[in-house]
Amino acid sequence: MAGTDHSRAAVTGGPAVILVNPQLGENIGTAARAMLNCGLDDLRLVAPRDGWPNDKAVAAASGADSVLDRARLYPNVRAAVADLAHVYASTARDRYMVNRIVTAHRAAAEMRGFLAAGESCGVLFGPERTGLVNDDIALADTVLTVPLNPAFSSLNLAQAVLIVGYEWFAADDESAPETQHTGASRPANKAELFRFFDHFEEELLNSGFIRHPDKRPSMVRNLRNLFQRAHPTEQELRTLHGVVTAFMGPRARAKEGGEG
Amino acid sequence: MAGTDHSRAAVTGGPAVILVNPQLGENIGTAARAMLNCGLDDLRLVAPRDGWPNDKAVAAASGADSVLDRARLYPNVRAAVADLAHVYASTARDRYMVNRIVTAHRAAAEMRGFLAAGESCGVLFGPERTGLVNDDIALADTVLTVPLNPAFSSLNLAQAVLIVGYEWFAADDESAPETQHTGASRPANKAELFRFFDHFEEELLNSGFIRHPDKRPSMVRNLRNLFQRAHPTEQELRTLHGVVTAFMGPRARAKEGGEG
Repeated sequence: MAGTDHSRAAVTGGPAVILVNPQLGENIGTAARAMLNCGLDDLRLVAPRDGWPNDKAVAAASGADSVLDRARLYPNVRAAVADLAHVYASTARDRYMVNRIVTAHRAAAEMRGFLAAGESCGVLFGPERTGLVNDDIALADTVLTVPLNPAFSSLNLAQAVLIVGYEWFAADDESAPETQHTGASRPANKAELFRFFDHFEEELLNSGFIRHPDKRPSMVRNLRNLFQRAHPTEQELRTLHGVVTAFMGPRARAKEGGEG
Repeated sequence: MAGTDHSRAAVTGGPAVILVNPQLGENIGTAARAMLNCGLDDLRLVAPRDGWPNDKAVAAASGADSVLDRARLYPNVRAAVADLAHVYASTARDRYMVNRIVTAHRAAAEMRGFLAAGESCGVLFGPERTGLVNDDIALADTVLTVPLNPAFSSLNLAQAVLIVGYEWFAADDESAPETQHTGASRPANKAELFRFFDHFEEELLNSGFIRHPDKRPSMVRNLRNLFQRAHPTEQELRTLHGVVTAFMGPRARAKEGGEG
């Protein structure tokens, strides 16, 4: 089915989200919003209590209507998962059955692998207050848990969908470099940084803060380490040069080079 | 403060959750529930729009009242983070400042390390519709992002708190903090850092480097971001104070406090 709906495959290629006997229309709507936050749009509804379509779902989905519009309806879980190769059943409580159990985080990594291999997958979420029944869990191959405070675990349906979807989305994270540099302020190279050190340390001497020009007291080295840790941009160094000059006046003799 | 409240330390030892100018009481309540799901209970409120306590928060918190009962109120962000060594600012949009940026997942691992080393931390969340202002981000050292669908990103406040808290709960990373601190040089807390900012910026004014004391020109904010990225130790700040004093002479009137 994903093969014929190219727009869907192009949008997400993600796991199906299967809501089993969802009780409140609003919760279907908020679940749809949670899905779209995570780039998911294969929503499947198994016998929603208040029928389908549902105005309250539409109202609560606001902005995520596209997910509702494409939601598919099934009479039971078996029909809803028929086309899937891998199905996770989300549950918080111990079922006292012998299941393979993984965290949402692990499941996300597995699903990335499955989908890359062309094997479809989905996640079951049970009715809001009661959760999945054991018989439905037995229609899945793996139990998925969201590790949270055992003393107070009260995720609502949309939040459970959000966490599973979030882990899915984040599992593709090609983590970007940690420090954001805008176009105007590229990281300074070491020559530029050392030029700042030269200026700064010359004024540390002129001010009397340090007394021995030929030694690198540990205090000065510590300051170098501090500025290094900041990973200054070229623009920031220009600002720092300006601050030092404002504090101490122009340098006695302008240094053109100073890479040393 | 955490030292005297043994019950809090026993319950979580987790990061503080700081809501900056939260607008709706209901959202404070749902955020408290999200926190308790994740075993977090250090809630700090900065100038909630509708005051405090708030009946709607209590109603929405249902079951998580303990978090609300212990919530602490602050007039501004500066006061709310004063005791913390590490502060993350959560935001979705690019701020065009030079900040260190990490995902919620990475931040969780880092916070586990910080807390294991006895270094307090917290996470800032901005007002519901507008998010944090840049000046508040400059009071944190690291930006935290939640990687989600750029085409549709609509987390509400409780969901953002939930994802951060979920990552915290799920992380059991014992990794040591990346920056090695020796016994003599613990990370400065924000009160100490802000005291340095006060000193430094007063002298920026006195030197003529900046001209308007009541504005925070982006240049000053950029310098704050730079020093934040360096994660200065308490010892380094003392050195920096000494450098500023050596450059500009002793301050006209000694400032004893300055946490505000």
